[in-house]
Amino acid sequence: METFEAIRKRCSLKTHLSKRAIESDKVNLILDAARLAPSASNMQPWRFVLVQEEKAIDELATAFNETNQEVREAPLLIVICAREEDDVTRNGKPYYLFDAGLAVENLLLAATDLGLVTHLILSFDEGEIKRILEIPDEYRVVLATPLAYPAEPSYDEAAKERLRDRTRKDLGEITHYGKWGSGGPV
Amino acid sequence: METFEAIRKRCSLKTHLSKRAIESDKVNLILDAARLAPSASNMQPWRFVLVQEEKAIDELATAFNETNQEVREAPLLIVICAREEDDVTRNGKPYYLFDAGLAVENLLLAATDLGLVTHLILSFDEGEIKRILEIPDEYRVVLATPLAYPAEPSYDEAAKERLRDRTRKDLGEITHYGKWGSGGPV
Repeated sequence: METFEAIRKRCSLKTHLSKRAIESDKVNLILDAARLAPSASNMQPWRFVLVQEEKAIDELATAFNETNQEVREAPLLIVICAREEDDVTRNGKPYYLFDAGLAVENLLLAATDLGLVTHLILSFDEGEIKRILEIPDEYRVVLATPLAYPAEPSYDEAAKERLRDRTRKDLGEITHYGKWGSGGPV
Repeated sequence: METFEAIRKRCSLKTHLSKRAIESDKVNLILDAARLAPSASNMQPWRFVLVQEEKAIDELATAFNETNQEVREAPLLIVICAREEDDVTRNGKPYYLFDAGLAVENLLLAATDLGLVTHLILSFDEGEIKRILEIPDEYRVVLATPLAYPAEPSYDEAAKERLRDRTRKDLGEITHYGKWGSGGPV
């Protein structure tokens, strides 16, 4: 798939997920894409916990908000962790979060390219996730996402609707030229 | 370009930049890609300041570390800003940084896809950048990057070398299966 197609098609969907297992070579392609993201001083703070057992997924989902319970249908949940000390902090900005974002976007686009569905989850009981997955104290849970094949054909309609209803600020609202507050040739 | 090719080819290079102006439709494609990134509750905290005048670029570059002065050669610098209050903060994790990372990775991949060069800069005098670009107090400067055509043919050799020398942790070092500390089928 073309880069721009993946960027435009990527959307968060937690419904119409197939239980079909995901081939491990696809999972590895996706993790490899995440791994290739840049990071401050190449510190690569990202860590991934993959949860595949149905029982383990059910347990993990108890730490997610009610609105995200549909992700139990997925054959795989990926939990993205990082710790502040594995990255730089500049003027109070902890770049482990920024760098995790770079890697996660690669992960999301790679999944989209391979026809897989993701959904960004950041409403969760972090302490519970850490307890369940035995994540060391100093690591932070940044995000979780299901990774699933779409349940066809119902998924297609949901994705079409999701993309149609997608709202983003206009470029004019988020872009400044030369100095803050100056419009430009958009 | 295929998504995986863009992910694999993207690298930070600040040398061998052409002064050739970048067509505004390409700039807009790249900003549009950034804009399509997901964010917590779709809050879209990212803001972009584009600096194109040679004199303005020279002034901005005075706020960058010595190691990044080569980016003065670029025809365009993009400064990415965001503020914490435009996003959620969970358990002390300010997601404006994570979400900025998602958008920036889209920007980097879109640029790569269009044959353009980027370089992540986060070593700078933030106060100076804010003063020069008149960025409001509450916004943070997260990153700057040049956007440039490569100066052919010398760029190709530099990029080849850069990719060849790239080091990333093995998947086994960053991936856990089922629980933290457990190896898997990688």
